[in-house]
Amino acid sequence: MFKVNDNYLKLPGSYLFSTIGKKVAAFSEANPDKTIIRLGIGDVTQPLAPAIIESLHGAVEEMAVAETFHGYAPDLGYEFLRKAMADNDYKARGCDIAADEVFISDGAKCDSGNIQEIFSLDNKIAVCDPVYPVYVDTNVMAGRTGIYDAVSETWSDVIYMPCTAETNFAPELPEETPDIIYLCFPNNPTGSAITKDELQKWVDYANKVGAVIIYDAAYEAYISEENVPHTIYECEGARTCAIELRSFSKNAGFTGVRLGATVIPKDLKQGDVTLHSLWARRHGTKYNGAPYIIQRAGEAVYSEAGKAQLKDQVAYYMNNAKTIYEGLKSAGYTVSGGVNAPYIWLKTPDKMTSWEFFDYLLEQANVVGTPGSGFGPSGEGYFRLTAFGSYENTVAAIDRIKAL
Amino acid sequence: MFKVNDNYLKLPGSYLFSTIGKKVAAFSEANPDKTIIRLGIGDVTQPLAPAIIESLHGAVEEMAVAETFHGYAPDLGYEFLRKAMADNDYKARGCDIAADEVFISDGAKCDSGNIQEIFSLDNKIAVCDPVYPVYVDTNVMAGRTGIYDAVSETWSDVIYMPCTAETNFAPELPEETPDIIYLCFPNNPTGSAITKDELQKWVDYANKVGAVIIYDAAYEAYISEENVPHTIYECEGARTCAIELRSFSKNAGFTGVRLGATVIPKDLKQGDVTLHSLWARRHGTKYNGAPYIIQRAGEAVYSEAGKAQLKDQVAYYMNNAKTIYEGLKSAGYTVSGGVNAPYIWLKTPDKMTSWEFFDYLLEQANVVGTPGSGFGPSGEGYFRLTAFGSYENTVAAIDRIKAL
Repeated sequence: MFKVNDNYLKLPGSYLFSTIGKKVAAFSEANPDKTIIRLGIGDVTQPLAPAIIESLHGAVEEMAVAETFHGYAPDLGYEFLRKAMADNDYKARGCDIAADEVFISDGAKCDSGNIQEIFSLDNKIAVCDPVYPVYVDTNVMAGRTGIYDAVSETWSDVIYMPCTAETNFAPELPEETPDIIYLCFPNNPTGSAITKDELQKWVDYANKVGAVIIYDAAYEAYISEENVPHTIYECEGARTCAIELRSFSKNAGFTGVRLGATVIPKDLKQGDVTLHSLWARRHGTKYNGAPYIIQRAGEAVYSEAGKAQLKDQVAYYMNNAKTIYEGLKSAGYTVSGGVNAPYIWLKTPDKMTSWEFFDYLLEQANVVGTPGSGFGPSGEGYFRLTAFGSYENTVAAIDRIKAL
Repeated sequence: MFKVNDNYLKLPGSYLFSTIGKKVAAFSEANPDKTIIRLGIGDVTQPLAPAIIESLHGAVEEMAVAETFHGYAPDLGYEFLRKAMADNDYKARGCDIAADEVFISDGAKCDSGNIQEIFSLDNKIAVCDPVYPVYVDTNVMAGRTGIYDAVSETWSDVIYMPCTAETNFAPELPEETPDIIYLCFPNNPTGSAITKDELQKWVDYANKVGAVIIYDAAYEAYISEENVPHTIYECEGARTCAIELRSFSKNAGFTGVRLGATVIPKDLKQGDVTLHSLWARRHGTKYNGAPYIIQRAGEAVYSEAGKAQLKDQVAYYMNNAKTIYEGLKSAGYTVSGGVNAPYIWLKTPDKMTSWEFFDYLLEQANVVGTPGSGFGPSGEGYFRLTAFGSYENTVAAIDRIKAL
């Protein structure tokens, strides 16, 4: 008699964004006359840049002719894309990462969910609180998180590192020693960033205690301040303790295109076993590569035209971020983020819970945001708005919130 | 101190097709004057059909304009594709499968590797021997297979069902009762098929013992005989015991495009828990959907023009299969498969091992095939050739083999 993976049944409720989707759908159905503005899920709205469109069309044409048709991709990604990333994201910043340390995938969500598979079940993970739910949920599904306490909304075998106004939305080194540390900067959901010196402390700590850092750099394109690192490999010693996750979703608008990458330096080892070899084995056995045409689109992100067009696209969203930040501030809200990240993090007014504020905003302003508590217990009383709407919708949403 | 997943270290050697790739690369480098013909890995060579190219271009254009741009896809796939599959692959054959029981993915390799995650670690799996290596390897990586015996090349906690000439290349019901049964028909690697009556026996058996069948239907487009089922849901009672994996790789040449689907009927349960809900949760948490433009390409597979063009493409490959089958037979080889599948399975001559024959063929005829032993111990002494080359290469390869 087959038996299901009981760990799945321990997960409280459904995935955050599925719940939001259902709530919005129900409201929309009950109020067909209302125009809803979505600043909730971090989905982009600007079309793909012309350089990317051109590249996609070109690759589609290649697939139409036997001589240039592409079947199975190389296990770990096409060399042209791995090299473009190594050159532009790393070597150009003085970081020592080789093309064959970059693994191409269909997105950072998959990678951030799958990466835990190459670790033993008895590793203890540490996460920021609040945090992108995928890090914890995928460890729950694997059976690595112990028992769930419904009152505190925490797992017994997870080390939570609060990131609240009191800690300036950055984690402090944990008292209990973790084996795997998830860090994401610029941060989702708080929009906060840390300096290179601050990140160096984490690298030093991880090397000292023998922990591995899984560093999610999905939002690095939004960094505007000088002393904020674009990759963890700017820090000395990161090659022996850090895995980095890269996304094309936010810097190039690929949420519906699906492309990402994971970097594992070959110096990252347990004894003789490199994590690089384990991830390569996982790719070879459980994955079949990102589509050729999509990898060509990724290459165009690093072309001169692509870079210029995407710089404008990021600037467009960051202008939205400024609009939200300043608009809410002038309306008396306590806000942070939005300077090095496309996320604005606000304190809910009048001691509303995050979900109360979600319902309030949906019903009264027809604006969708994301409840902070959905990202962890320390997110309670906070709320996330994203800069990924159109400028017109962003202005309209802020006007509606101000009018409440 | 972090610890790696030791199960990965139990895997003997590297993934079969990676090993073949390395051997061929080494031979090629040492013999730059030789023209190698690859009939090894099951990769297609014909370009994408015109209807698919047109659909891809159209979808790319949609991504270029804000009004028709598509961001994150629905968790489980776009309705247009789920419905096209439910209508064409199931309803048209009288099978009761609804659109919301179809989960769109980026390929059957990922799905066949990931599906085991929704089951407990203490399920016992049964596999055909020989078999597509992904089924066993992904269970090894999860820690479900016990101890490896290097002499017999088997795992202590896996039930092997030999499929050799003696069993007509079909499995017999196992003596020990399994919890999860992997079946693939038409079969990779042997190219054999089973009748609907034979498959019905497996469905009845699974329902009787409470096992779940993971049915890989990747090659159904190649079925030419009347009494061979195109889906397991042609069998009565399959809704309570079977998951079906579908691929676009071989029927539409999508090996480099990446699209697949998994069907889980809502009647498949352990108590109140549906496997459908667990797989939906996995999709929502660890996956972010197949690219919009690729899902549109999948839709074109089911258009009238697409169907006609792909029928021709399958016929082209099946003509190759016939060429291989008859050519080898006339040369005195013992061959099977090739009638309902794009794979030809042959007995190695002169008691050569599978890898000896691989080297012999590579060195003497410069033809790449796949050693049967790479698919399991009962594959020893067999060899797989695929029909996915060009017609010209297929003819040339067979001429070379005949000339040996």
